[in-house]
Amino acid sequence: MQRLKCRVEYDGTAYAGYQVQPNGVTIQEKIEKALTQMHKGLKVKVTASGRTDAGVHAIGQVLHFDTSLNIPASNWKRALSSMLPSDIRIAEVEQVSEDFHARYDAKGKEYRYYVWNSHEANLFRRLYMYHIRKPLDIESMRTACRLVEGEHDFTSFCSPRTDLKGSKVRTIERVTIEQHEAELVFIFKGNGFLYNMVRILVGTILEVGMGDRTPDELTTMLAARDRKSAGKTAPPHGLFLWDVDY
Amino acid sequence: MQRLKCRVEYDGTAYAGYQVQPNGVTIQEKIEKALTQMHKGLKVKVTASGRTDAGVHAIGQVLHFDTSLNIPASNWKRALSSMLPSDIRIAEVEQVSEDFHARYDAKGKEYRYYVWNSHEANLFRRLYMYHIRKPLDIESMRTACRLVEGEHDFTSFCSPRTDLKGSKVRTIERVTIEQHEAELVFIFKGNGFLYNMVRILVGTILEVGMGDRTPDELTTMLAARDRKSAGKTAPPHGLFLWDVDY
Repeated sequence: MQRLKCRVEYDGTAYAGYQVQPNGVTIQEKIEKALTQMHKGLKVKVTASGRTDAGVHAIGQVLHFDTSLNIPASNWKRALSSMLPSDIRIAEVEQVSEDFHARYDAKGKEYRYYVWNSHEANLFRRLYMYHIRKPLDIESMRTACRLVEGEHDFTSFCSPRTDLKGSKVRTIERVTIEQHEAELVFIFKGNGFLYNMVRILVGTILEVGMGDRTPDELTTMLAARDRKSAGKTAPPHGLFLWDVDY
Repeated sequence: MQRLKCRVEYDGTAYAGYQVQPNGVTIQEKIEKALTQMHKGLKVKVTASGRTDAGVHAIGQVLHFDTSLNIPASNWKRALSSMLPSDIRIAEVEQVSEDFHARYDAKGKEYRYYVWNSHEANLFRRLYMYHIRKPLDIESMRTACRLVEGEHDFTSFCSPRTDLKGSKVRTIERVTIEQHEAELVFIFKGNGFLYNMVRILVGTILEVGMGDRTPDELTTMLAARDRKSAGKTAPPHGLFLWDVDY
């Protein structure tokens, strides 16, 4: 028996999210089905660093599973990828110790959110970027980013549909906005993220960028601990789970 | 009555090509349907610079149509785009003289073909780039490009399924290959292109890049005037109709 750790990329467009659920096809389901085929019908369970929502993409999702197959880690990438559809790709596989856990051992995560800010649509990136026609004030969005960095109770930036009972205190190490002409990339690094947290933060910071809110409202929202105080949830298709730290 | 000239972008992934045909949904059909709706059921025919095959994309397809609607050209872009699916976009509209013809007046075209040359797949560009794992020799491909430039009979680089009866002599002004890390872009500029001509040229030049053929075989192939002498037809999804000159 060996435990394998995989980095997985996926285009979330066609899926009802990462995690197996009764309605709609999920990424976990596709991966478990491929593994079950490789194990001649024996069901293999995979554990990921966390779920991603319907339509959200990943470059650096990490998962682990146990296998009794006698295949060296270096051959797994090709073997497993060949059983998967073209919108899911096993990017790296390595053997890890039996006590490695993709979810519990994750120390931090990086998410990126892509915005296309132009009057003109970008047809060929439409599935991977949120298109905003209205000009955005990057400097006031950057000021807003500074205010959510650090340790805070992020209740206002968590979907009420969460099943989390415990603390909503999390630490965002850094939020940056990179700009390459019309393309904006919001980069979030933190020790953990609540349900819809990145999308609500992006939606709110974009309202600052459009001049509908001032940057310091972010401080008031954090203090309110009420989802209703924050802005709209940005759509899923601009979001990428970029990296998981162990 | 006014004649309008439009630049159209489309993602060809979901379509059976540009031109209306009995099997499968086409881009022309979608545009004519939108125009017919705008004209309250009156059928409007559009004429494009030429057809593109199933799966081929466009940044610079040009078409014209006549309308009796009293809408200024500047409002047409938004009005028509709003009736189209998200994978077809009207990028520019201008009023032209009544004798402008999108097909007969085209003086030249530019096509671009995108290749992703890396051992690793590029999941998020998989629908817009042809993935080649084997390393390519760019310099020998560039030598091959030089040999097809100029005026030639391109019979060897034309699909036998063409319905063209006339001359297969065309002039390719310039073929260049741009390289940005793993991304290669083949740029073809010429006065006219035969059926599948760009895809057969790319497929053949790629065989040179992989070392399966020498660059000067291109000269022999041109002289042979026989499709069987040339290489494979590259797949459609890497190809973009980039620009039409009038």
